[in-house]
Amino acid sequence: MGGDDAPAIVIRGANQAAGRHAAPRFLFFGDQDAVRPLLAQAPALAGRADIVHAETVIAGDAKPGWALRRGRRSSMGLAIQAVKEGRADAVVSAGNTGALMAMAKYSLGMLPGISRPAIAAILPSRRGAIVCLDLGANIECDANNLVDFAVMGALFAQTVLGRADPTVGLLTAGPFAQEDRDVVQDAARVLARADRQIAFHGFIEGHDIMAGTVDVVVSDGFTGNVALKMAEGSLRLYAGWLRESLSTSWRGRFGYGLARGALRAMRTRIDPRRYNGAMLLGLNGTVVKSHGGIDSFGFAKALDVAIEMHSGNVNHRIIDALDRLHESSQPQREPAPIA
Amino acid sequence: MGGDDAPAIVIRGANQAAGRHAAPRFLFFGDQDAVRPLLAQAPALAGRADIVHAETVIAGDAKPGWALRRGRRSSMGLAIQAVKEGRADAVVSAGNTGALMAMAKYSLGMLPGISRPAIAAILPSRRGAIVCLDLGANIECDANNLVDFAVMGALFAQTVLGRADPTVGLLTAGPFAQEDRDVVQDAARVLARADRQIAFHGFIEGHDIMAGTVDVVVSDGFTGNVALKMAEGSLRLYAGWLRESLSTSWRGRFGYGLARGALRAMRTRIDPRRYNGAMLLGLNGTVVKSHGGIDSFGFAKALDVAIEMHSGNVNHRIIDALDRLHESSQPQREPAPIA
Repeated sequence: MGGDDAPAIVIRGANQAAGRHAAPRFLFFGDQDAVRPLLAQAPALAGRADIVHAETVIAGDAKPGWALRRGRRSSMGLAIQAVKEGRADAVVSAGNTGALMAMAKYSLGMLPGISRPAIAAILPSRRGAIVCLDLGANIECDANNLVDFAVMGALFAQTVLGRADPTVGLLTAGPFAQEDRDVVQDAARVLARADRQIAFHGFIEGHDIMAGTVDVVVSDGFTGNVALKMAEGSLRLYAGWLRESLSTSWRGRFGYGLARGALRAMRTRIDPRRYNGAMLLGLNGTVVKSHGGIDSFGFAKALDVAIEMHSGNVNHRIIDALDRLHESSQPQREPAPIA
Repeated sequence: MGGDDAPAIVIRGANQAAGRHAAPRFLFFGDQDAVRPLLAQAPALAGRADIVHAETVIAGDAKPGWALRRGRRSSMGLAIQAVKEGRADAVVSAGNTGALMAMAKYSLGMLPGISRPAIAAILPSRRGAIVCLDLGANIECDANNLVDFAVMGALFAQTVLGRADPTVGLLTAGPFAQEDRDVVQDAARVLARADRQIAFHGFIEGHDIMAGTVDVVVSDGFTGNVALKMAEGSLRLYAGWLRESLSTSWRGRFGYGLARGALRAMRTRIDPRRYNGAMLLGLNGTVVKSHGGIDSFGFAKALDVAIEMHSGNVNHRIIDALDRLHESSQPQREPAPIA
């Protein structure tokens, strides 16, 4: 029921994803009177979908605390509960992010050894898709949080992006800056020692993200959120200027007509809907957040992410990797404790 | 002597700026044997330039502390000294940013009432040029620092961008985020009360920056630095993809040929050299930092910024505005102290 055009885009998106993936079954949590007629128009879901009726919905502006206290029987609350009880393998929502994170954390709990969950997303770069985290779950982070994000991001890049030995970079302020944050320095020290588990590249700056300098970009949630949205805004500015420039002369318009196919291919490549589906990593269960303003094409992409995360066994692999990391870094940790 | 192609681009840049501005005289600090022959090839500088010989140069990777202790007689140190002693009205450098900030802060001191200097730059947006600060001088900021940045940014937007009543936004992590940083919340409270001095828009998110939602974007230096460089990286990715898309088919190449003028106009518009010249605001003197990898066209833009800052009397106007702000916010400040 979450997002701007729910439940229509959710069911149409599931219909698209069902056409791509033969195995999954779909549970729709929400107002059955709204969902049922939409489901009747989704041929790929025939025989593979059930409705779980929910009386209430978490509003887009509800506070996480309110959702925790009152949202148990909402569509979001029931969907998370289904994952907790093993009736579903993953939950995908286009609803309130803060509520989703809070309820999922409370109901599902954290993976053992993970200090905080993180929101991760796949972004385009000059050298292919990359993973960025945290994008807003944790406004303040300590060094151990950043180390956990590095491990989770690396495992995610292996599993979902298929990178054999993903490189990890810590996002920091570059030459302009007089010094780096202590937490970033401390995290770098731990990661440099864990070089058998993590291919730690070192510090990176903002321009390295989309240059594809590393496969996994690690930052606190405040910085990551601003960077992600700055990229969106920059691309929108650039695309708008391109349109304007091409429409101001007949040569531009004619050239645009000829190059339309090429320009459309580029738009497809940079289409934010293709990168929809942020993962709530670190939870004891697969939880994927779709952008709220997305259409069915984008929602289907978020479902793809959930399906790949589950079939790639990302969570179990994170637990194993953290165990190995903590074993190897334990002896050195004592003489130089991390703040 | 600072930057990748110094001193050649510095003198050629000054030659271009001198052609645009009749009044300023130029002092070149550096190796006189390198500077003199270059000056002989700069017709617009004839009779308007002097050389101050410096034996040493601050290296690009020198630490600010080292520069403070050992850099007094370097080209950068002597140039800052000239501003302090009134022999120059402004200093422009393409050298080491940390060293420039540290030495300028130590020699020139701060404007009365300003807690910390900030690096500010002009960026393009959908609705015209905007000012962003801090871009890396202050990795950690408290609420009062952010309020000072808001005042300095607004005055700068008035003076250099010519905005009558510039709006100010505080950069924060949006809906994804569970809560905002305390310092950002506290700064917002002070700014909301100062509405007769500052047109405070409220919180903005990353995508608002280049949408031009506000005239002045305020953030800590860590976040601002990452956001600025993320924008650079995004635009480079977009431009690279555009080139690739247009070169893969004959229609694309032919269309590109026709639309070349329009595409060139756009490249000009988004050219980062046009936005060169970051201001070190809050210092008791006009200090402008040029990008180190810039050419003479870009260096001339940094000189334009310094000339406009000085002729617009930005520093005096910042002092006046801060006085008024502190007078008006004093009574309310007592019951709700700022952390």
